[in-house]
Amino acid sequence: MAAAMKNRQVVLASRPLGIPQAEHFRIAQADVPDLRDGQFLVRNEFLSVEPAMRGWVNAAANYADPVPIGGVMRSFAAGTVTASRHAGYAVGDKVMGMLGWQEWAVSDGTGIRRKVREAGLPLSLSLGVLGINGLTAYFALTEVGQPRPGDTVVVSTAAGAVGSAVGQIAKIAGCRTVGIAGGPTKRQQCLDEFGYDAAVDYKAPDFIAQLAAACPRGVDVYYDNTSGSITDAVVQRINKNARIVVCGTASVSSWDPWPSGPRIERHLLNKSARMQGFLVWDYEHRYEEAVAKLAPWVRDGRLKYREEILDGLESAPDAIAGLYRGENQGKRLIRLPPEAAHGV
Amino acid sequence: MAAAMKNRQVVLASRPLGIPQAEHFRIAQADVPDLRDGQFLVRNEFLSVEPAMRGWVNAAANYADPVPIGGVMRSFAAGTVTASRHAGYAVGDKVMGMLGWQEWAVSDGTGIRRKVREAGLPLSLSLGVLGINGLTAYFALTEVGQPRPGDTVVVSTAAGAVGSAVGQIAKIAGCRTVGIAGGPTKRQQCLDEFGYDAAVDYKAPDFIAQLAAACPRGVDVYYDNTSGSITDAVVQRINKNARIVVCGTASVSSWDPWPSGPRIERHLLNKSARMQGFLVWDYEHRYEEAVAKLAPWVRDGRLKYREEILDGLESAPDAIAGLYRGENQGKRLIRLPPEAAHGV
Repeated sequence: MAAAMKNRQVVLASRPLGIPQAEHFRIAQADVPDLRDGQFLVRNEFLSVEPAMRGWVNAAANYADPVPIGGVMRSFAAGTVTASRHAGYAVGDKVMGMLGWQEWAVSDGTGIRRKVREAGLPLSLSLGVLGINGLTAYFALTEVGQPRPGDTVVVSTAAGAVGSAVGQIAKIAGCRTVGIAGGPTKRQQCLDEFGYDAAVDYKAPDFIAQLAAACPRGVDVYYDNTSGSITDAVVQRINKNARIVVCGTASVSSWDPWPSGPRIERHLLNKSARMQGFLVWDYEHRYEEAVAKLAPWVRDGRLKYREEILDGLESAPDAIAGLYRGENQGKRLIRLPPEAAHGV
Repeated sequence: MAAAMKNRQVVLASRPLGIPQAEHFRIAQADVPDLRDGQFLVRNEFLSVEPAMRGWVNAAANYADPVPIGGVMRSFAAGTVTASRHAGYAVGDKVMGMLGWQEWAVSDGTGIRRKVREAGLPLSLSLGVLGINGLTAYFALTEVGQPRPGDTVVVSTAAGAVGSAVGQIAKIAGCRTVGIAGGPTKRQQCLDEFGYDAAVDYKAPDFIAQLAAACPRGVDVYYDNTSGSITDAVVQRINKNARIVVCGTASVSSWDPWPSGPRIERHLLNKSARMQGFLVWDYEHRYEEAVAKLAPWVRDGRLKYREEILDGLESAPDAIAGLYRGENQGKRLIRLPPEAAHGV
């Protein structure tokens, strides 16, 4: 490995209070360090962009320490091992893990989530429908949502990377699926592309009436990725023993001050219902089990997905803000050019 | 049976908006009807008084239809079968069930929750520590709370009829128990009488600090019988995979308008925690299993209880309001005089 090999990185320049914008990041350059025993080098080919990254840079207490100022932006990425002094990783292995928004990543295996072995499917899927998005959808729905055939499953952010998978997996499980999305285009996408039985537009003035009409038998499972007024509307319609899976709080722009809303306790009590937080990290030991289910569904077309691929590291700084502007169409990824293209 | 036998009853005179007061009830007199085939007659000896009765008379949607105006007040009661044309119930059987605030109840068995067979224990316990209170404590804690040895279990209304049992059952399960009660007397009762490891006074100005000191390792299980600011304080301290069992909302005086509070979703998400409503009716098929556990604990003194017995039907109308005034010491019951005393 050449000592002069350069690694371009997106680092956190300042700490955002809410949604991280382009100006909170800058592009820096570092040397790729020599490998020590037990390490290997990954050439990142795809970097992930996801809503949760907001929480990774905010100072507020969260489920992980925030990215330090000046640190490489934490992210999932997928790439190929190009050099190795680690017995478990060979040159040519495809890996997915917390490799950061950078061209090259040195790893001792700690941040690696899985080796990507699915034959005949693009590596990018390991960051989307076969990655954290699909794994989140699978475990959140099956383990916490526990859908039974005939159940009505309501999905918020229904056309999103996770939500669209939740809806389709629920359909495969024999449920009636109802998608909630923003605007007529996404609503139609729920119906045409992701096969929801019904879809409602939370931005429409008659949202509440749309929701009621879409759930004539109430709500058994609610995949809650929004919190806020969408959740408040769904909770009104839960059935006995309903399961609410809290996976995200996309509608809440800031937790300082902490937002208020209608108290949930009486709804849960009246219906013996359950509201439970879900973190996909809790299921890391079971990822392969889920991929083994999901990959065949992708191959046979029962589990559709959308990707939106941005090109080059320069597109990264504004990419999270763009998610919150709602401009993405499907799982947002950043594709890095092949190594030779910028002359290592 | 004499045709002239009279039955004094407490009926709902008007519908309260919040907590039912004495003036919402009146005492009426009806004939005891002749028994038809499949019916039996119970002489009520103890009538139950409990916070949930507020919900049974309010018009707001709840888990049961409200008591109609002019109807006998719904309640648990325990008594003895004095006449029977039902093959399953014999004269002399002790029964507990939804027999109402009245002296005599004709039943076809529908409202009966169980036959009381515990040897050497007072019948009144079938309405308290061996009745709905103890059953609620047992199933709410074990089935929803799922305590493990070493867990910190926090109990609101900790000196109450259900809460005190929750705390003691959690202690038997090997947990550290922390009681929350109102005022220094109830707080001391938690420590001296119900064996909590720590107790805090939610009315004290330093409640939050008391709670923090009592839970140095956070909160694994929270028995929530209050909602409101007590719950908001406990939720701040929950551990990974915490279980919040919602059994009541005693601190909420009205659900019209629906009260607001800090949103719970982010707490549940950050901790993969669960908040679940509990209704003891869901466990009716398992009552005997629980009584078989609870009765030996009562006999050997590991499960202590307090009863507060009011005398006569006349004490019923104000009895629910009294609970909400916090004047009761232990499970509140109304004892009816023996049949002969008012000259049937």
